[in-house]
Amino acid sequence: MSRTAFGIDIGGTSIKCGLFDGQGTLLRKDELPTRVQQNGALILGDIRDYIFGVLEEERLDLSGIAGVGLGIPGAVTPDGVVNKCVNLGWGVVNAVKEMAALLKITPEKVCAGNDANMAALGEYWQGSGKGFQSLMLVTVGTGVGGGLIINGQPVNGYHGAAAELGHLPIVTGLKEKCTCKKTGCLEQVASATGIVRLANQQPELFGVQDAKEVFDAAKAGNRAAEHVVETVSYYLAKGLACAAGIADPECFIIGGGVSAAGDYFFDRIRQYYRKEVFHAARETKIIGASLGNDAGMYGAARMVLGKEQQND
Amino acid sequence: MSRTAFGIDIGGTSIKCGLFDGQGTLLRKDELPTRVQQNGALILGDIRDYIFGVLEEERLDLSGIAGVGLGIPGAVTPDGVVNKCVNLGWGVVNAVKEMAALLKITPEKVCAGNDANMAALGEYWQGSGKGFQSLMLVTVGTGVGGGLIINGQPVNGYHGAAAELGHLPIVTGLKEKCTCKKTGCLEQVASATGIVRLANQQPELFGVQDAKEVFDAAKAGNRAAEHVVETVSYYLAKGLACAAGIADPECFIIGGGVSAAGDYFFDRIRQYYRKEVFHAARETKIIGASLGNDAGMYGAARMVLGKEQQND
Repeated sequence: MSRTAFGIDIGGTSIKCGLFDGQGTLLRKDELPTRVQQNGALILGDIRDYIFGVLEEERLDLSGIAGVGLGIPGAVTPDGVVNKCVNLGWGVVNAVKEMAALLKITPEKVCAGNDANMAALGEYWQGSGKGFQSLMLVTVGTGVGGGLIINGQPVNGYHGAAAELGHLPIVTGLKEKCTCKKTGCLEQVASATGIVRLANQQPELFGVQDAKEVFDAAKAGNRAAEHVVETVSYYLAKGLACAAGIADPECFIIGGGVSAAGDYFFDRIRQYYRKEVFHAARETKIIGASLGNDAGMYGAARMVLGKEQQND
Repeated sequence: MSRTAFGIDIGGTSIKCGLFDGQGTLLRKDELPTRVQQNGALILGDIRDYIFGVLEEERLDLSGIAGVGLGIPGAVTPDGVVNKCVNLGWGVVNAVKEMAALLKITPEKVCAGNDANMAALGEYWQGSGKGFQSLMLVTVGTGVGGGLIINGQPVNGYHGAAAELGHLPIVTGLKEKCTCKKTGCLEQVASATGIVRLANQQPELFGVQDAKEVFDAAKAGNRAAEHVVETVSYYLAKGLACAAGIADPECFIIGGGVSAAGDYFFDRIRQYYRKEVFHAARETKIIGASLGNDAGMYGAARMVLGKEQQND
C-alpha cells in the first residue's frame, strides 16, 4: 500500500473528499456540496471534476493512484450497485461502473460501500479501532446505526442490514411507533431524538430541545436528566450485549453526535454492559470514536487500498 | 477438493467420526466412546488409533488424505488451542499440534473448531444451508446455541462467543437466574429446559417432563400448551431478529432436539420474526436443519478440505 487513494464520503448535504497515502495519512481534505437535483445525476460528475482538479494541483497522475473509494448513504451490493438511495435522489445506480467510466479508469480501481461500514473501517484503520482485530462502530446521532468489521473486512449482511443496531427490538413498554413502523426499537430511546423525547416526558425537563442539554443537566446533578441518561445507557448496553452475543467483536466504538458526552456516558454504558452480556465477552472494550465525520472518508480510501493490495 | 478427509466431532459422551470425499459424500461413519478419564488424555490417541484402523481397512494412505478436522465442545483459537474444555476434562490443549504429532503429519493438515461452528459449517456445506452465502444455525436443545457462517467462514468472535444466542438478554419479567448467573437470557424460556419450566408453571401442565410433551399437547389443541409454544416462539423470533440486526445472514437454520417439532414450531417463529425484525431482513428464510447430529462431523471435514483448497 505505497500509493495514494481518494476516499470520498457522499452525504445528503455535502461530499467529504480526502486524499490519503498508503499509510493512512490524510494529505488533503475538501468538501463539496451534494447536488441532489436531477435525481442526483450530477453527483458523480462533480466528484470526477474534483478529482481531476486535485490531480492537476498536486501534479499527480491517475495511473499512479491506487483508486477511488466511495461511501454511500444506503445499501451497496458487492458489485457496487446502489438500489435506491433516497438521500441522494438515486434510483438504481452502479456507482462503481459509473465512477470508473467518468474517470476513464478500470472498475477494479473503484470501490463503493455503505457509509456506516466505511466509517467503521476508517476507525479500524486510523481511528480508535487501530490495532483491534474486529470492532463494531455504534453511531448515536439522530438515529442509531453502525458498522461491523471482522478481520479487516466490513460485514454488510445479506440484505445490507448488518449492524443495524437502531432497530434491535429490545425496548419494552413503548407505545409510539419507530420511524421504521415497528415499536420497541433501540433508537426510539437511545438516539438524540429518543433522548429528547424521553426528557420531554419528565415535567422538570419539558421543552428540552437537544440531547446535549439533557447530558449537561445530568452532569450538573439534575435527577430527572440523570434518570434519562441511565435509561438510555441501559438500553444501549443491552444492544451492545446482543451484538456481543452474535458477533463478539474485540471492541465497541461509540461515535455520532451524542458520543460527545464522553466518559460520563460511556461509563454508564460500560456498567450496564457488564451486567447484561454473556460472561465470555464481559471485558470487551467500549471506547469513543476518534475520527468524527472524517471516518467515512478514511474507510473509503482504506477499502480501495486494501483491494489494490489483494490484487498485487 | 478431490481428496478425502476425516471429520471428527468430539462430544462429551461419544466421538462421531466420518470419512468424506471432497464432494461432501460421507463414505463411512463410526462412533467411539469419549474416554474422559485422566483429564481426557486418551481422547486424541483413541482418534489416532481409529484413523489408522480406517486407513488400513479402506486401503488408504495418510499422504493421500486432505487431513483431519476436529469439532470440540468449547472455544478454540485460530491456532487450534483449547483453553479448558470441561466436557472433555481438558486443561490447555493445542489440539491441532497434538493430533498432528500423534498422526505424524504436518499441523497444516489438521483443523480444529468449536463444535457449534462446525455444525453450522456442516449445514452450510451439505445440509439445509447448501447454496446460501451466509447463515446462522440456531440449536434449540437443553440450551440454545448456534454458529454463524459468513462467506463460507465460521465467525468465532474475539472471545469465541459469537452466535451465543442462548444468552441474549431479551426476556423480561423473569426472577430465576440462568445457568450463566444472569437473569433474562433467551435460553431461560426457549430451550428444552426452559419450555418444561414454563409448562410446569401452568396448572394444567404441571408434571410435564419434556419439551416434546408440550408440543404434542399444543398440536392437540391444549390451550395452556399452545400458550407456552407461543411464548417460546415469540422470544426465539426476537433473538433471531437481534441476530439479523447484527449479522443479517441469508437464512436461519433451526436445529437441536426441539426442532423436531417442525413447521408447527417454525411457522410460529416466522410469524413473530416478521413483526420483530428490521424490514430489510424481513424475508430471511427460517428452515429446519437436515444433518442432525452428523452436522459437526460434516463441518469438521469441510474445514480441513477448505484449508487444503486455500493452500493449493
